[in-house]
Amino acid sequence: MSDPQTLPGPRVPGRCMAAEMAEQPAVLRRILDEGAPKIREIAAGIAARNPRFVLLTARGTSDNAALYAKYLVEVLLGKPAGLTSMSTTTAYGAKPDLRDCLVITVSQSGGSPDLVASTKAAREAGAITLAVTNNAGSPLAEVSEFHIDVLAGPEKALPATKTYTAELLALYLFVEGLRGGDGAAAKDLPELAAGVLDRQAEVKALAERYRFAQRLVITSRGYGYPTAREAALKLMETTYIPATPFSGADLLHGPLAMVDNVSPVIAIVPEGKGGEALQPVLDRLRGRGADLVVVGQQEQVDAASAGFALPAGVSEEVQPILEILPLQLLAYEVTIARGQDPDAPRALAKVTETR
Amino acid sequence: MSDPQTLPGPRVPGRCMAAEMAEQPAVLRRILDEGAPKIREIAAGIAARNPRFVLLTARGTSDNAALYAKYLVEVLLGKPAGLTSMSTTTAYGAKPDLRDCLVITVSQSGGSPDLVASTKAAREAGAITLAVTNNAGSPLAEVSEFHIDVLAGPEKALPATKTYTAELLALYLFVEGLRGGDGAAAKDLPELAAGVLDRQAEVKALAERYRFAQRLVITSRGYGYPTAREAALKLMETTYIPATPFSGADLLHGPLAMVDNVSPVIAIVPEGKGGEALQPVLDRLRGRGADLVVVGQQEQVDAASAGFALPAGVSEEVQPILEILPLQLLAYEVTIARGQDPDAPRALAKVTETR
Repeated sequence: MSDPQTLPGPRVPGRCMAAEMAEQPAVLRRILDEGAPKIREIAAGIAARNPRFVLLTARGTSDNAALYAKYLVEVLLGKPAGLTSMSTTTAYGAKPDLRDCLVITVSQSGGSPDLVASTKAAREAGAITLAVTNNAGSPLAEVSEFHIDVLAGPEKALPATKTYTAELLALYLFVEGLRGGDGAAAKDLPELAAGVLDRQAEVKALAERYRFAQRLVITSRGYGYPTAREAALKLMETTYIPATPFSGADLLHGPLAMVDNVSPVIAIVPEGKGGEALQPVLDRLRGRGADLVVVGQQEQVDAASAGFALPAGVSEEVQPILEILPLQLLAYEVTIARGQDPDAPRALAKVTETR
Repeated sequence: MSDPQTLPGPRVPGRCMAAEMAEQPAVLRRILDEGAPKIREIAAGIAARNPRFVLLTARGTSDNAALYAKYLVEVLLGKPAGLTSMSTTTAYGAKPDLRDCLVITVSQSGGSPDLVASTKAAREAGAITLAVTNNAGSPLAEVSEFHIDVLAGPEKALPATKTYTAELLALYLFVEGLRGGDGAAAKDLPELAAGVLDRQAEVKALAERYRFAQRLVITSRGYGYPTAREAALKLMETTYIPATPFSGADLLHGPLAMVDNVSPVIAIVPEGKGGEALQPVLDRLRGRGADLVVVGQQEQVDAASAGFALPAGVSEEVQPILEILPLQLLAYEVTIARGQDPDAPRALAKVTETR
C-alpha cells in the first residue's frame, strides 16, 4: 500500500484512517485465501497438545479482539478462559504455574515491552504460547512458540481499524481450527464488509447527532460486547468524547442511573442469543427516554431512535467483524465534523511502550 | 442495625449511605474476629483439593471485588485466573470442562438469577464452587458447595459500600488461607479505616472541585486498579458523571487523547509496585496539563493538583480496603452537593434481576 500521507497534495485529515478502513474487505479476503491454511496448521498442532485453559493477553484495541476470542473459546470450545492482568507478571513478578495453559498474546505491532516480557515469562512457566500480530518480525512473534500473522499490511493511522477486524478473523479461524471446524461462517465476510463500508453516507448522517455530545454510553451483550468496548475506545481516542462501554447486564447494576433523556446510548444488538439477552436492557433504556441508536438488524433499528442495519443471516460468532465497521466510520465522521484529525489524535504514539 | 430511613424526623438524603459507610470499621473487625476461623477452614478444605485454575463470577460492585481477588490469586497463589463472561453460560449455553477449577461467585445479595444459574452450571461441570455473599440464606449460597458470609449486616442504600470492603477482606483472608498464610497484613485495618473515615471534611472540600464536572477519568495499576473501577462505578451511579476507569497502561493505549487541561483525572497510587508502575502514566498526565487528584501516599499527593493521603506502611495487597473509602465519601459528597440523594439513585433496584 502506498502511504496516503505521502501522496501528492496537501495533508488531508483522516486520509490514512479512511484508506485503512476501506482496505478491510481485501484484508479479510487475504486472510481467508492466504492465511487460513497456516492458521489451521498451527491450530492442529496446538489442539494435539490439548490445553485445558486459555489465557489471553493484550492492550487497547487488541484487548477487545482478545475478549472476542474469550467468547469463542468458552462457547465454541467449552474451555475456561481468562484475560490476564499483565501487571501481576510485569510489576509483581507473579510466577503462575501455566502447564496445560494456552497463552495467546494479541498485538498489532508485537512491540510493546510488557507484552514481550509477559509472553516470555508464560513460556518459561510451561505455557503453550501463541502470538497473533501484524508483524511477523516483531519481538513478540520471536519469543512465542507459535505465531499467526494477521496479514493486514502496514497500519499508519493511530486508531487501529483494519488490524482489529484482521485480528478478529484470524482468531475466529484459529478457534475453529482448534475444534476441527472449517470456518465456513466467515466465507462471505469480505463481500458483506464491502457492502457495509459502501454505506458511509448513512453513517455521516448519523454522526450529526453526536456533533455536540458530551458523553456516550455503549452497550451490548455476548459476542457484541467486545464490539461495544472497541467502539467506545475508537470514539474516545478520535473524538475525545467519554464513551463508556457496558455489558447490558452490568449497565442495570448501577450505571443505568447515568442515562436520561439527553444521554445518548448506542446499542449493538447481535442477531441471535446475545441480542435476545439484550432486549430487557433496551426496554429499560427506552423507558428512561434515552436516545437509543442501534447497530443491528433492521427491525431492531426500526424500534430505536435511529441506527444502522446490518446484513441478516450471518452466524452470530462472526457478526462482530461486521458490527464494528459502521462504528469505525462513526468515530471517523464525528471526528471530522468536530474539525479534528482522525489520523493523529493528540498525545498518542503508534507503538505504546508500556512496561 | 436500625434502618436510618425509619428513624424519626424527615427523610434525609444520603442518610443510609452515610450510616453504612460509617459501619465499615466495625464490619472489618467482625470479619477478623468472628468470620476468619470459618474462612480459614473453608480455605483449607479447598486447598486440599488443589485447584489448578480460578474463575471469578460477579456483577457490578462485586465484580470489582472479584477483580481484586484475581490479583491476589495470580500474585499470592501463582495460579492462573479469569473473570467469567457470564453470558457464555446463561445466553449461549456453553458447557466448559471445569474439573480442577475453583469457581468463586461474589454477590452482595446472592439473589441474581444469572449468578445462581451460572454457579449451578459450574458445579455440574465439575468445578469446586464457592459463594461469597452477604446473605447466608440466599439461593446462591444454597447452590454453591462452599459459602463465605461477609457479615456486613443488611445494606439498604442502593450504592454498595460496606459490602464491598467486606467482600475484599473476606476474599483476602480466603486467599491467605489457601496458601496457609495468617492474614496478618489485615489486622490493623479496622482502626486505619476509622481514621480515614474520620477525615470526611477533607473529602468534602475535594468534592467542590467536581461540582460541575462533566466527565472523570480514573486510573491506577496493579492492586489499585479494582479501586479505580469501583470508584468509577460509585461516582457514576450516584453523581451520574460519566467516570471512565483505565489501567494506567491501557490509558496510554488510546484514551489519553481524551485528557486535556480541563479534564479531571483521579489516580489511585498504591504504595508499592503498582504505584511505581503508574509513575510514567502520572508524568504523561501532568505533561498534558490534566487536573490530577491523587489518593495515595502524602508525597504523591504533594506532587499532584490535590488529593487524599492514605496511611503509610500498609501491605500493598490490603491497601484497596482503605483506598476506596475516601472515594466512597467523594461520591457521597459530590452527590449531596448536586442536590441528589445518594441513597436512591434514579432507575436502580437493590437486587438486580439480570438473566
